[in-house]
Amino acid sequence: MTTQELIRQIHRKKSFLCVGLDVDMQKIPAHLLEEEDPIFAFNKAIIDATSHVTVAYKPNIAFYEAYGIKGWEALHKTIGYLNEKYPEIFTIADAKRGDIGNTSAMYAKAFFEDLGFDSVTVAPYMGKDSVEPFLEFEDRHTILLALTSNQGAFDFQTKDTEGRELYKRILETSGKWKNSHNLMYVVGATKAEYLADIRRIVPDSFLLVPGIGAQGGSLEEVCKYGMNENIGLLVNSARGIIYASGGMDFAGAAKTEAEKIQSIMAAVMPG
Amino acid sequence: MTTQELIRQIHRKKSFLCVGLDVDMQKIPAHLLEEEDPIFAFNKAIIDATSHVTVAYKPNIAFYEAYGIKGWEALHKTIGYLNEKYPEIFTIADAKRGDIGNTSAMYAKAFFEDLGFDSVTVAPYMGKDSVEPFLEFEDRHTILLALTSNQGAFDFQTKDTEGRELYKRILETSGKWKNSHNLMYVVGATKAEYLADIRRIVPDSFLLVPGIGAQGGSLEEVCKYGMNENIGLLVNSARGIIYASGGMDFAGAAKTEAEKIQSIMAAVMPG
Repeated sequence: MTTQELIRQIHRKKSFLCVGLDVDMQKIPAHLLEEEDPIFAFNKAIIDATSHVTVAYKPNIAFYEAYGIKGWEALHKTIGYLNEKYPEIFTIADAKRGDIGNTSAMYAKAFFEDLGFDSVTVAPYMGKDSVEPFLEFEDRHTILLALTSNQGAFDFQTKDTEGRELYKRILETSGKWKNSHNLMYVVGATKAEYLADIRRIVPDSFLLVPGIGAQGGSLEEVCKYGMNENIGLLVNSARGIIYASGGMDFAGAAKTEAEKIQSIMAAVMPG
Repeated sequence: MTTQELIRQIHRKKSFLCVGLDVDMQKIPAHLLEEEDPIFAFNKAIIDATSHVTVAYKPNIAFYEAYGIKGWEALHKTIGYLNEKYPEIFTIADAKRGDIGNTSAMYAKAFFEDLGFDSVTVAPYMGKDSVEPFLEFEDRHTILLALTSNQGAFDFQTKDTEGRELYKRILETSGKWKNSHNLMYVVGATKAEYLADIRRIVPDSFLLVPGIGAQGGSLEEVCKYGMNENIGLLVNSARGIIYASGGMDFAGAAKTEAEKIQSIMAAVMPG
């Protein structure tokens, strides 16, 4: 998907909501456990209930890997369902991969070709040649970790690195890599006060912002400091939406929560 | 597996060779493509041919993910075969994972419980709470990226960070995390001259050293600067061994190459 198509979808839905599909078998409604594939049944219901106000879905790959081959089958079915029924919706494999060049090329193949995601999250620690194999894919997007939503972000990411905090150095350096127009960045909502500084370095890039809801970040603050003229934000909520209810009404409850967030988004969007 | 068991194996085999199972369908001998599971057939043959001189096997997870569900099935069969037939051999999931706490816990479950690996490689960028869920598993090992073997290592890892190169800061900081006795570190063989400095910071830790062979690192240099009194090294070779021949004799050729490396290792080991 091109960035322009994503922007058009955002304006059409008046939403920049990304729903995180972090599916934990211990948290999904008990009646789904009788289904042949409980994870996919859960995802399908959540997607169908929220797609009208959602511009991106983000399966968190760890949650699928934890269930082994069954988990991968559920992931395949989920991305297949999204690509077939909702091709206009942006898809994010939240995988946080990154390795030496020939290995990153295999990960890129896995997520862009085998699974067919529009984008994948990538860790920057191994530098340029670990990221460029992902960037080679045109109209696919590489979402590089910059400033993450967790407490551990302060261990290394915010440390001064030759006169720049590490995450700022990563934003600046990665902008010089080949095909850097295919980059987006992860910035946690729990660190919204950093967004103004980040926007000075990457004014045009899309930012994937996890951390509202269960992690405590504020949507209003994120919009205030992070929005650019193309909106430029994908704000993720996972647990707050997908586990809004643990009962038979889980999909309806997810719909209600997603619509609540979308209405806040619509109110702050220009035009 | 405990560290003591690993050390005993190293002394018994007079080897600290790790064989990287980075299986690319385009590089394995053509006759294997007729097998029901070519990747597993290849791995099984390589393992059986090299296990007498090998103390660790390291499947590179990207290479399995790139083949989707078939790849995951081959990975399951490979680790299952290792754990059943060669339980004394150390196993490494080269996955370079790392995410917020609840997600890292799912990755730990995937690699330690579902797949049954002894260890997994983890990226440090997200800090303490992204690594500690892996460290919670006793007698399992978390191999943290410190200084990687690729050129991109110089983009961020070696940058001065508040008076310390970033990789050194990671070595020092991670040593204070809970259950840090379960940590090992990745240090690329292509940067052997850094090993003396690294040993001053982590004198007792095991180091996983990729990058000899195809990537150009020197085994002799690694031993000179990196060995400690427990040997403390797992030196990985992948392409140089597993693709030593592309013909019917691939397993025999892999055996010869593995034995060559082991004989160099035996010669430099004390006693």
